[in-house]
Amino acid sequence: MQRALSIRSSKSTRSTSGNSPTSTSHSRTTKSSGGRGGFSLSSLRGSIQPELSKRLYRLIKSENNLISSYEAAGKERLSIATQLSEWGEHTNDEAISDVSDKVGVILSEIGEQEDNYAHALDESRGVLKTIRNTEKSVQPSRDGRNKLVDEIGKLKSKEPESARLVVLEQELVRAEAENMVAEAQLRNITRQKLKEAYQAEFLATIERAEKQVILAKHGLRLLELLDDTPIVPGDAEPNYGQSGQARQILNDAEDDLRDWRLDLDGVLGGTGGKSESPAREEDHKEEKVQDENTSPVATTGQQGEQQTLAPAPTMSGGNGNGGLNMQKVASVGV
Amino acid sequence: MQRALSIRSSKSTRSTSGNSPTSTSHSRTTKSSGGRGGFSLSSLRGSIQPELSKRLYRLIKSENNLISSYEAAGKERLSIATQLSEWGEHTNDEAISDVSDKVGVILSEIGEQEDNYAHALDESRGVLKTIRNTEKSVQPSRDGRNKLVDEIGKLKSKEPESARLVVLEQELVRAEAENMVAEAQLRNITRQKLKEAYQAEFLATIERAEKQVILAKHGLRLLELLDDTPIVPGDAEPNYGQSGQARQILNDAEDDLRDWRLDLDGVLGGTGGKSESPAREEDHKEEKVQDENTSPVATTGQQGEQQTLAPAPTMSGGNGNGGLNMQKVASVGV
Repeated sequence: MQRALSIRSSKSTRSTSGNSPTSTSHSRTTKSSGGRGGFSLSSLRGSIQPELSKRLYRLIKSENNLISSYEAAGKERLSIATQLSEWGEHTNDEAISDVSDKVGVILSEIGEQEDNYAHALDESRGVLKTIRNTEKSVQPSRDGRNKLVDEIGKLKSKEPESARLVVLEQELVRAEAENMVAEAQLRNITRQKLKEAYQAEFLATIERAEKQVILAKHGLRLLELLDDTPIVPGDAEPNYGQSGQARQILNDAEDDLRDWRLDLDGVLGGTGGKSESPAREEDHKEEKVQDENTSPVATTGQQGEQQTLAPAPTMSGGNGNGGLNMQKVASVGV
Repeated sequence: MQRALSIRSSKSTRSTSGNSPTSTSHSRTTKSSGGRGGFSLSSLRGSIQPELSKRLYRLIKSENNLISSYEAAGKERLSIATQLSEWGEHTNDEAISDVSDKVGVILSEIGEQEDNYAHALDESRGVLKTIRNTEKSVQPSRDGRNKLVDEIGKLKSKEPESARLVVLEQELVRAEAENMVAEAQLRNITRQKLKEAYQAEFLATIERAEKQVILAKHGLRLLELLDDTPIVPGDAEPNYGQSGQARQILNDAEDDLRDWRLDLDGVLGGTGGKSESPAREEDHKEEKVQDENTSPVATTGQQGEQQTLAPAPTMSGGNGNGGLNMQKVASVGV
């Protein structure tokens, strides 16, 4: 494995074809208006990202390209599968016609798995958006605190006796309290959602891979039915009597796919992972309660996210399994 | 598995932005000039395909799109991996920084596997070209025979006593003999190469999948190192002491990838496959000898293919393993 991961891209994110730098004021408006409903993605899209969220904003865009690649691969596979079957039919060779048709079925199902994978990646991408939205909502809090520190510094050097200093210092104490909460929320959300997003991605990777192994192995069995012993010109073509077997191989593949279950035995808990899973689950609950009480910002972020994601389940409808796996693993203690 | 594979595309292949319909005359020229060297791909590319090879010509084009999709996915993964690592560093959270960096390494290696897969598909695509080239070379033989049959038919109805009929019927006997050889060559090459191409493709699918399962499982272990228990605002961040374990997980992943071997036990030979593999291998040799003696057309096709494929190994250099697997399976008796 090469490890060239300390390269840093020097480009600034300015390039995002932005309207005006309204994102910061947006977040502020949201906060002052009670923190509800202001975070719909459409109103932020295309605007310049605050420093804190620009890296994740870019990463989420790249994830989109990745997803498109897999969608394209899935579509192309289906098309190739159909073409292979049609080509086989036109060879007027019974064995090739049957095997190519059935290999086509296997290939199209491999393509289907790419498409499911794309949907699962899209869900994982949605989880990353929660982090990005929280980052975005924490930026004004940092900015506000820093502005006060600057102001106090300037005033102290110019009018050290100013009465405004007392007021500003009171404001700073309030801003620091507010920011402390914001940073803790950011830290908590980031860890939880980072873990959640990439767990989903790795589980989807395992699911796609294991199902494609099943399919490819049955594909190899199908190819075994094609006798490629050469015939001498003029010799009669031996009869092809394998179509029943070919059909059976497809049935086997179907059964194996249906019986597939995620098996993470030996993966987790083994090496130094933490084994306090029930405690962890409680922690989650606690944290939610805490959020509701003390953190309008994070709650807004999450609600905004839910609104944004509302159409996603329809879009990624095929991915019921991905969700199921996540739950399974959660109960295993990830 | 859905089975919508009997759909037939009604489009004609005319759309290939062609120069002039020179392909048929091309093949003829090739044949009359001794059948050597005329089949370089560059001289045929973009020309209208003869009926016999147009389906496979299209399929091979589609395979190219598929390969591009996987190449794109591989590149995007590498980019996302780097971005994730950089983002993590800027969170100023030691645990997130370390875990995101190492998850990035895993993701980039998953991307690397997509790229290897693309190269393997490209080799499989090269094998399909051998079939297509043979199809192309057989078309003039069919056309020549059919033309003679037509001519004889017309002449019989117009001038049944014509002396030319005798000559034409002699020509037809020769053309039919030639065509019989051509059709047998086509049948043999098609079966062999179809099997070879999709065996390579399925083996590459298995290799990619199994390696990605290894990587994803270690990725899940890495995520386990990230403690997502929420902290209360103002609480000190617990120390992150897992970087040694994280490093170890990457080492484990590296070891597991290096130790990976293709294992097809129980896949082949089990259900009704043929078990006469040594005999089969001899057959191949026989067929080659036969080709050299009796079939200038097929030999040309193969040589042309070799010329065409000459630069391919450089392009798909990363895929030494794919080839290795094929040999392994061949000796297992595929």
